[in-house]
Amino acid sequence: MSIESQQEDNKEQVNHEKYMKIALQLAQKACQQDEVPIGALIVYDGKIIGEGYNQRNMQKNPLAHAEIQAIHQASKYIGDWRLEDCQMYITLEPCPMCAGAIVQARIPQVIIGADNPKAGCAGSILNLLQEPHFNHQVEIIRGVLKEESSLVLKNFFKQLRKS
Amino acid sequence: MSIESQQEDNKEQVNHEKYMKIALQLAQKACQQDEVPIGALIVYDGKIIGEGYNQRNMQKNPLAHAEIQAIHQASKYIGDWRLEDCQMYITLEPCPMCAGAIVQARIPQVIIGADNPKAGCAGSILNLLQEPHFNHQVEIIRGVLKEESSLVLKNFFKQLRKS
Repeated sequence: MSIESQQEDNKEQVNHEKYMKIALQLAQKACQQDEVPIGALIVYDGKIIGEGYNQRNMQKNPLAHAEIQAIHQASKYIGDWRLEDCQMYITLEPCPMCAGAIVQARIPQVIIGADNPKAGCAGSILNLLQEPHFNHQVEIIRGVLKEESSLVLKNFFKQLRKS
Repeated sequence: MSIESQQEDNKEQVNHEKYMKIALQLAQKACQQDEVPIGALIVYDGKIIGEGYNQRNMQKNPLAHAEIQAIHQASKYIGDWRLEDCQMYITLEPCPMCAGAIVQARIPQVIIGADNPKAGCAGSILNLLQEPHFNHQVEIIRGVLKEESSLVLKNFFKQLRKS
């Protein structure tokens, strides 16, 4: 690998961590409201155009996942149902609904923090993001701030068991 | 089969057709607005508590599928993210996003009109509604007013090709 392409890779990694940190701050907002702490954001041309955190209990709405809210905001910003030039950052591997929504929105790249071995649909249980039968496949980058993303969930459930 | 249980079955079939007809009327609303005609409704205790039709282009929103709107309305009515005692009627087999949303909402029974061989996630491509790894499985009744449900889509695409 040339020095230039290595520098480019390092720069990309730094960028991924920068945005994942913001997604983790969104997850913390969920935590403060006693929701399972998951955060998501969507970046377009270096700008955050959609963000969300899990609010399922608070909104009493099964659709109120972090990813769905971020997609809703981003498509309002773009003015289209296609989010074709965007990246999405998620602190946890998406559930089937959110993975399906990412495919519907034609998001080309998703960056994931922690894996979700119980319901993850970006490779853990199924891989809806790269299902060859669908008309869109998503590039997946996983394990960005993996430890921090896992820890925020672990701490939440530890606290929940205590109380 | 006893006469009583046969009568019960016939009554259920009549009910399914009654609600599917209403879902088809919702699909027609989509059609009138140049949207792919798909309709959905949710029934609780004999009452329609959520309905929707595809508005993806009009709303410029990848989430604006019939099922998502019906679930949104129904959870507002019930005041909970769990739609545990509801039935959902859909004129077309759900996409991965909508199948995932049905699982998230813990809907116990889904009645489907036409199959979707290109992206259907209730058995055609995948079966997200009955994936044993997830924490909820859905009873599927398919083929209710199948011909009518297919026809409304076929006519839409035929018209689209003409224009």
